Amino acid sequence: MVAPVRFELLAVDSGSAARSGLLHTPHGTVETPIFMPVGTQATVKGVVPDLLRAAGSRMLLANTYHLALRPGEAAVEQLGGLHRFMAWDGPILTDSGGFQVFSMSDRVTLSERGVAFRSHLDGSLLDLTPERAIAIQEALGSDVAMVLDHCPALPAEKAAIAEATDRTVRWARRCKEARSRPDQAVFGIVQGGAHADLRGECAERLVEIGFDGYAIGGVSVGESPEEIRKALDVSTPHLPSDQARYLMGVGRPQDVLDAIAAGVDMFDCVLPTRNGRNATCLTMQGTVRMRNAAHKTDPRPIEEGCDCLACSRFSRGYIRHLFLADEMLGPILASVHNLAFLHRLVSRAREAIRAGRYVQFRAETLEALGPSSVK
Amino acid sequence: MVAPVRFELLAVDSGSAARSGLLHTPHGTVETPIFMPVGTQATVKGVVPDLLRAAGSRMLLANTYHLALRPGEAAVEQLGGLHRFMAWDGPILTDSGGFQVFSMSDRVTLSERGVAFRSHLDGSLLDLTPERAIAIQEALGSDVAMVLDHCPALPAEKAAIAEATDRTVRWARRCKEARSRPDQAVFGIVQGGAHADLRGECAERLVEIGFDGYAIGGVSVGESPEEIRKALDVSTPHLPSDQARYLMGVGRPQDVLDAIAAGVDMFDCVLPTRNGRNATCLTMQGTVRMRNAAHKTDPRPIEEGCDCLACSRFSRGYIRHLFLADEMLGPILASVHNLAFLHRLVSRAREAIRAGRYVQFRAETLEALGPSSVK
Repeated sequence: MVAPVRFELLAVDSGSAARSGLLHTPHGTVETPIFMPVGTQATVKGVVPDLLRAAGSRMLLANTYHLALRPGEAAVEQLGGLHRFMAWDGPILTDSGGFQVFSMSDRVTLSERGVAFRSHLDGSLLDLTPERAIAIQEALGSDVAMVLDHCPALPAEKAAIAEATDRTVRWARRCKEARSRPDQAVFGIVQGGAHADLRGECAERLVEIGFDGYAIGGVSVGESPEEIRKALDVSTPHLPSDQARYLMGVGRPQDVLDAIAAGVDMFDCVLPTRNGRNATCLTMQGTVRMRNAAHKTDPRPIEEGCDCLACSRFSRGYIRHLFLADEMLGPILASVHNLAFLHRLVSRAREAIRAGRYVQFRAETLEALGPSSVK
Repeated sequence: MVAPVRFELLAVDSGSAARSGLLHTPHGTVETPIFMPVGTQATVKGVVPDLLRAAGSRMLLANTYHLALRPGEAAVEQLGGLHRFMAWDGPILTDSGGFQVFSMSDRVTLSERGVAFRSHLDGSLLDLTPERAIAIQEALGSDVAMVLDHCPALPAEKAAIAEATDRTVRWARRCKEARSRPDQAVFGIVQGGAHADLRGECAERLVEIGFDGYAIGGVSVGESPEEIRKALDVSTPHLPSDQARYLMGVGRPQDVLDAIAAGVDMFDCVLPTRNGRNATCLTMQGTVRMRNAAHKTDPRPIEEGCDCLACSRFSRGYIRHLFLADEMLGPILASVHNLAFLHRLVSRAREAIRAGRYVQFRAETLEALGPSSVK
C-alpha cells in the first residue's frame, strides 16, 4: 500500500533541529515547515479560497466536532466531501475533537469508551468514540485525520495526566484499527503534559502502533513558551525523523520559531484570523492595533514590503476607518494580512534552514519582533 | 471646457423609451443602463474590489453624509481621494446627503440655508448646506457629485411637496455656483412627489440651470411600482435625451426593468447586498432563501448558469451551512451572487435594447421573475 501522505526530508539546519521538507498528500505537495489556517466550520473566517491561496495558504485545518454537529458529516459527504464542500483543492487536516475535550470540558462526559459532548448548539448528544472520530473524518475526506486524544486541563496531578496519556494511547490504537480509507493519513498525538517521562513513553508507544505522522498535543492550553519548548524537547527525540511532526494549536510567531528550531514541521492556529478580526495586525516590527487614532490619515500599508491584498492596495487610514465603521472588510483585510505574515515567516524559515542559517535567522527575527503581545 | 462626464447614446429601443449608451467619466467609460452597488462607507459591504469587478460592477456609489462624519472628507482627501482610499479605479458617484434628510428626519433641522444633522454616531453637528455638500464631494473626488436636494417624507400635502421642490431647485442653483472641480460632474435631482406638474416644472427649471446629468429622486421612500412609474413618466420627457438619467435608490429587478423602459440609464440600491446579508438570493426563477432546510444537501449552485464566484464554486448546501453557522462567508457569497444577478439583468437589458427587442425581453423576464418578494 502506498502511504496516504509521505514526508520527504530535504534539509536539516546546521545549528538546530530545524528541518525543511515536503509533505506529499492526496491533494498535492506542500513545503514544510507549514502554517495551516484554521477553518473550524469549513471556512477560514471571512476569507474566500482564492484570497487564502494568494495570501500563501497551502493546507487548511477543519474541525471534526464542529462539522459533525453542523452540518453533519453525512451532509458534507453527500456534497462531495470537505474539499468540494469548501472549494479548497489543497490538502486539509481535520482535528479529531480531542481539543474540545479540553476547551468544552463543562460539556463533556468522559469514559474509556469515548467522549460524550452536549452540543454547544442545541444540547443534543454527540457521542465521540475513537471509532466515531475516525468515521467522521473518513466521511469528511480530509487528507490527514487525527486520532481522538484525551487532552487534560492543566494544572493537574501527574497521576491524572498519566491516566489521560494512557487513554490517549489506547484510543490511538482503536483509531488505527478503525481506519479504512487508504487515501487518508492518520496522525497520532503525543500527550503527557510537562512530564518528560510521560511524553517520552507516549511517543514511543504511539510509534510502536505506527502512524503516518505525529502531533504534539496538549500545548495550546495556556502554557508559557518555556513549557511548550520543554514538551517539544522531550517529545521530538522519540519521533521518527522520516515522518511529519505537527505542533497543535500554536501560532504565536515567537513560539512557531522556537518550535521550528525543535524540529516541528506543521502548525495551526486561529491567531492570525482571530487577531485580524480584533483589528490586531502582525508585522515584523511587532503588532499594530488598527483602531489607533495614529492611523487616521496614515497612507502606509499595515506592513511596508508586504505584498498581500491588504498591504498592496489599502492604507492604514482606510483599514482603521473600516474597523471604526464596523465594516466586514476590516476583519477580512486584517485576517488576510496576518495570514500572509505567518506564511511569509515560515517561508523565510524554510529558506534559512535550507541555507543552514536558521539559528541566526531566528535570533534576528525574534529581535525584530520584540516580546509577543498577541494571544 | 471638456465636460467631466459625457453620455453617448448608442441605441434606442423600437417599442419603448429604453435606451443604451456609454457614460464617459474621468475614471473610464461604462455601458448604460448600469446598476451601481452601494458602498455607503466607502466599501460595498464584505466584497473586496476584485470580487466586485468579477461580479460585473463597473461604477459604485458612496455617501457624502456618512463619509463626512466618518472618517471626514479631509481624511479621505489626505489619503488620496475616494478612489485611492477604497481602491476602486472605476467611476464613483456620491450622493449628497439629501436622502438622509428623509431617512434621518428625526435628526434633521431644515432651513433655507441647508440641513443640520445631529450625527447618528456621536450627536455632533453636521451642517450640510448646498455649498458644503459640493465641497465635501469635491474633497472626496467622486466622478459624479449630486446636488443637495430636499427629499420630503411622503405622504405629504401638495403644498409641502411644492415647497421642498422649490427649495431643491434653489439649492441646485447654489450647488452649481459652488462647484469648482473641472473633473467632477454634478447631477441635478428632480423632486415633486407624485405630482406631474411639480415634477415637470422641477425638471425644466433644473435643465435651465444646466447640469451634467439628471436624477429622479424621492422615489425610494416606500412607494409602489406604479408610483415610481408615474414619477418617471412625468419627469423623463422634460430631461434632455443627450444626458444621463439616474433613478436613485431603486434596485428591485421588476422596478429596474420598468425604469429602463421609461428611459433611465443609471440605478443604485442596497438591495443586492442587504438581501445577500440576510440570506436572500435573487434568481431568474424568483428569490431563494438560503437558510431553508431544503438546501441542506443540495449540490446545485444558488442559480444554475450563473458564473459568479458563489455559483461557480459553492453549493446551496454549503452556503446554507455558512448562514446557519453565522460565518461571514455566507453574506459575502450571497452578496456577490446578488450583485452578479443585477449586473447580468441590466447587461441583458442593454443587449435587448440594442437589438430593438426590449419590450419582449422585459415581458419574458418579468414573467420568469414572478412577483417581487424582496425589498
